[in-house]
Amino acid sequence: MSVVQVKLKDGSVREVESGINLRDLAGQISSRLKRDSVVGSVNGELTELTTPIMEDCAIELFTTEDEAGMEVLRHSTAHLMAQAIQRLWPDVKLAIGPVIQDGFYYDMAGRTFSSDEFEQIEQEMAKIVKENVKIERQEISRDEALAFFKERDDKYKVEIIEDLPDEETLTLYTQGEFTDLCRGPHVPSTGYLKVFKLMSLSAAYWRGDAKNDSLTRIYGTAWTKKKDLNDYLERLEEARRRDHRRIGREMKIFANAPEVGAGFPLWLPNGAKIRRTLERYIVDLEESLGYHHVYTPVLANADLYRISGHWDHYQEDMFPPMELDNEQFVLRPMNCPHHMMVYKQDKHSYRDLPIRIAELGMMHRYEASGAVSGLQRVRAMTLNDAHIFCRPDQIQEEFSRAVELIERAYKDLNITDYWFRLSYRDPEDKEKYVQNDELWELAQKMLKDAMDTMGLPYKEVEGEAAFYGPKLDVQVKTAIGHDETLSTVQLDFLLPERFELEYIGEDDRPHRPVVIHRGILSTMERLTAYLIEVYEGRFPVWLAPAQVKVLTITSDVDAYAAEVVQQLKRVGIRVELDDRNEKIGYKIRQAQLEKVPYMAVIGRAEAENGQVAVRKRGEGDQGALATQDFVNQVLDAIDSKQ
Amino acid sequence: MSVVQVKLKDGSVREVESGINLRDLAGQISSRLKRDSVVGSVNGELTELTTPIMEDCAIELFTTEDEAGMEVLRHSTAHLMAQAIQRLWPDVKLAIGPVIQDGFYYDMAGRTFSSDEFEQIEQEMAKIVKENVKIERQEISRDEALAFFKERDDKYKVEIIEDLPDEETLTLYTQGEFTDLCRGPHVPSTGYLKVFKLMSLSAAYWRGDAKNDSLTRIYGTAWTKKKDLNDYLERLEEARRRDHRRIGREMKIFANAPEVGAGFPLWLPNGAKIRRTLERYIVDLEESLGYHHVYTPVLANADLYRISGHWDHYQEDMFPPMELDNEQFVLRPMNCPHHMMVYKQDKHSYRDLPIRIAELGMMHRYEASGAVSGLQRVRAMTLNDAHIFCRPDQIQEEFSRAVELIERAYKDLNITDYWFRLSYRDPEDKEKYVQNDELWELAQKMLKDAMDTMGLPYKEVEGEAAFYGPKLDVQVKTAIGHDETLSTVQLDFLLPERFELEYIGEDDRPHRPVVIHRGILSTMERLTAYLIEVYEGRFPVWLAPAQVKVLTITSDVDAYAAEVVQQLKRVGIRVELDDRNEKIGYKIRQAQLEKVPYMAVIGRAEAENGQVAVRKRGEGDQGALATQDFVNQVLDAIDSKQ
Repeated sequence: MSVVQVKLKDGSVREVESGINLRDLAGQISSRLKRDSVVGSVNGELTELTTPIMEDCAIELFTTEDEAGMEVLRHSTAHLMAQAIQRLWPDVKLAIGPVIQDGFYYDMAGRTFSSDEFEQIEQEMAKIVKENVKIERQEISRDEALAFFKERDDKYKVEIIEDLPDEETLTLYTQGEFTDLCRGPHVPSTGYLKVFKLMSLSAAYWRGDAKNDSLTRIYGTAWTKKKDLNDYLERLEEARRRDHRRIGREMKIFANAPEVGAGFPLWLPNGAKIRRTLERYIVDLEESLGYHHVYTPVLANADLYRISGHWDHYQEDMFPPMELDNEQFVLRPMNCPHHMMVYKQDKHSYRDLPIRIAELGMMHRYEASGAVSGLQRVRAMTLNDAHIFCRPDQIQEEFSRAVELIERAYKDLNITDYWFRLSYRDPEDKEKYVQNDELWELAQKMLKDAMDTMGLPYKEVEGEAAFYGPKLDVQVKTAIGHDETLSTVQLDFLLPERFELEYIGEDDRPHRPVVIHRGILSTMERLTAYLIEVYEGRFPVWLAPAQVKVLTITSDVDAYAAEVVQQLKRVGIRVELDDRNEKIGYKIRQAQLEKVPYMAVIGRAEAENGQVAVRKRGEGDQGALATQDFVNQVLDAIDSKQ
Repeated sequence: MSVVQVKLKDGSVREVESGINLRDLAGQISSRLKRDSVVGSVNGELTELTTPIMEDCAIELFTTEDEAGMEVLRHSTAHLMAQAIQRLWPDVKLAIGPVIQDGFYYDMAGRTFSSDEFEQIEQEMAKIVKENVKIERQEISRDEALAFFKERDDKYKVEIIEDLPDEETLTLYTQGEFTDLCRGPHVPSTGYLKVFKLMSLSAAYWRGDAKNDSLTRIYGTAWTKKKDLNDYLERLEEARRRDHRRIGREMKIFANAPEVGAGFPLWLPNGAKIRRTLERYIVDLEESLGYHHVYTPVLANADLYRISGHWDHYQEDMFPPMELDNEQFVLRPMNCPHHMMVYKQDKHSYRDLPIRIAELGMMHRYEASGAVSGLQRVRAMTLNDAHIFCRPDQIQEEFSRAVELIERAYKDLNITDYWFRLSYRDPEDKEKYVQNDELWELAQKMLKDAMDTMGLPYKEVEGEAAFYGPKLDVQVKTAIGHDETLSTVQLDFLLPERFELEYIGEDDRPHRPVVIHRGILSTMERLTAYLIEVYEGRFPVWLAPAQVKVLTITSDVDAYAAEVVQQLKRVGIRVELDDRNEKIGYKIRQAQLEKVPYMAVIGRAEAENGQVAVRKRGEGDQGALATQDFVNQVLDAIDSKQ
């Protein structure tokens, strides 16, 4: 019996009998590893645990703690589901069944499914798990595979195989009576699979094309522990509860009209009030800090983007150009080039710098119609943008001011769950990054020093910088668990060159300014989507679409109620009136559903005494207050951004 | 000698000798008419006064009181100028020399001109006038004309003739040694021309094409009385003084960058402050009056405009479509369809109406690049737009409210020179107008009644209505004398049909609402252009880009000046600081040029006493004031829209 040398992940080398399989090898290392492993790799290639080792090699073993292990577990669970379904309904034909985030799906034809049948399918799956059926891999030629699936009348598999090159070797995976065409690998037997749940179904098309057969897609999830599944279901429920699309619809914040187009949401009156408040807040704050807001066109001659470089490097994210009088115009994907042109409208001296040009700048970026979603992923967006034109000696100061502004804004908006990422270049990547080692080192150090001086924590990440300079990103998490960048401060040494920006220095000679791109509140779309999720629709008083709802108990107080409404309106409070002929309990419940921060309830007693009975969102009845005192209380809440 | 019957303009018929020319005929009517006539017409066709009358006909005589007469005078003056120039510089070749508003031009080649030579040319023209050279018309075949101008090496005339059909009969006009190819008619002799002035020169291209020869265009003006010329020059000077393009450039309100494109102005910081103030003013006012502002995309699927009818009827004013994922999107030329979609996002009861959807709606309309100008004529514009969805019984009330809002806004903006135009359909024009006699009569009467009830004067004009309903326009005059519509309130019976809008009536059945389109402040572009002209750049305090400029006399008050600036800023006053090391007289003059409404001058005395020395625009020195009193004075001026 021969011996082979196996190199393990930790670098150690072990001598084992030739022909031993990966699972037994795991057992030689530890019984725990044998128990937990679900898949392995030989010389970097994933393969079943049942694979025998015939020669010297490097191997690795994966448990479900590893991404690779978890993917195999879920992939095998997809097969398990397909097997269960074919046991229950043998006529069902299988299309494809890939792994997705947190689970898997399988597309099927030949039957109409209902989610009421999920339990039945899950029970059948559990039965197969209990049987602990072996899962066996078999290599097979293309022609054999074709014959096999033609015989079974599996037209989707036949089509897949027909599209493959002649010489391809294929693999079949068989577990009991069930066989699937699959690249694998899989777990050794169905007993490995324990915790799973079918989640939902949706319509799909063969190969995603509406001209093809329509299929049913069944989604499932799979885990190793019951607790992990429960945690996952809880996260889903939390995400659903916070989902800005659901809340946005229910609170009439925005809507999508197919006649207008996917990715182009309409901001309804409620959403517009929120957005307007945010816009005025940041514009006023920025103007008070020495920014100058401008309005510039949402498009430009394509030549502008030839100068900036977007035309060559960013065109696939841009809308197609429009021809007017033999000139090409294009909707802008970024505001920077327009702000460069604003800077160039005047001569500047070193004494005038920094010049901070800001705009609520509308941009258009191409996204596939299938990829857009709510306010979070859209094709038209308005960015709280600014470009700071400064001298090199002003970079650190201006960078720090921008970071302070971010912290100030987050405090006002009560955004607390975020982290700073300092994004550097990858010094090895000579392709992507502008080449100037000294400048990069200097600039990266400046940002780091500034963060340290402010005493702010951050992660340093190589290779995340923009091609034109290093940057600071502020990262937050959305309800559905996506990491996204809300704010950013970026140094740019390139655009000033391309646009030949200048200022006259103390030496009376022209110099190049540096540009700092910065977005504080992100786009109005992304910010609002994020805030809906953070607040779960319960907007603080200063942002709430309706800040006060006045509710009448009887119709004989209508005149007084109208007076109260006027009194609130006069000082700029957003107020709605519910004087319908309905029970007060009903009116209160509706105002609660609308998440209005204050209710002012008016019955005869309040009308007689010049009062309102105040109810606060989440706190309930606050008793009666003189109307003017109530007005002042609301104004205080607005002023202090409660 | 035979006699012919001549019918005059007043309908009378006169018997005259055959062969008499128009001028002598004028003499038979009155010596004054003979003196003043410059051209006549026979059977409706313009012709020289020297034309003999050979048969019965209808004739008319024109003086320079008539447009036709003035045009002939100016056309003959163009020839006069060309003759003078060829006398001075015989090598100059002539291209074309048409009449334009208030004057004429002539394009010439073969010499570089300077405006310094205008006097010399004018003197030569005066000489020819004194000579009173006869101007003679001659009919000539195309071939003869070709030979004539080829012989003289007049390549532009040759090219014009070559482009004419073979059978065309041409006319030459000769005055002394000067002959021009011209359709005429002209005055009988150069003595008719007395008051003229050369105005400017510019570069031009043969046939307007940059690929052709470059030419010099000399502009002139001509009048009958010296006083008319002087009035005209004064009007020009007044227009120049008020011209929003000049003031806009000098005050850094907006700029045009060729890299961005013609018709897409950049609003610089000063302009943006004005625009932001106007926008917030009207949005807040409208929200307080029950309008709901929204934000909707600046483009839509072209299908939206197929529904609305713009695609079929308005496409030549629209930008070309863009293709995304096999869908066509197009920049919107109007906001109405988007607002229809906002209305359709919800079900509405008769109790919810009127619903007033408003937006600062950005639109794009195609204009030829040569036609755009400043902020007045642009390709991208933001309209203070709203659509009121109401029941038929609410039309008059809602119309009146819109008119009241116009009057309120004009009062706040101090716009006084305007008039109301009620624009009705032309009942004969069955093509243009939606056919529903009863509805038109009713709607037109409603508008008229509403105006009468409000006691407002108006002109009624047939044929100026939109195709979908009658409207009220508010007309103003621009600095260069153009009449333009600033505000409009329009009834629309058509869009609700096309978009199938509904509300549930008291009868529990669906009904069609009426739509009222209304624009109060017009577009931000047009309004700002107009206000620059109305105010001649001297914006009232509440709109001025900088409301206060703080000027220091010596550098040892810098700290106090900074405090004053902060004190003003804290209450939202827009303030600039001039603490340069310059003489105070110089700083004051510069602030005056910038038209800042208030200056706060700070010397040692003011710093010691917590005061500022106030200077008001147009009123000069106001003496010293405690700083807080000054702050209050400025706030009062802002509040009262001074």
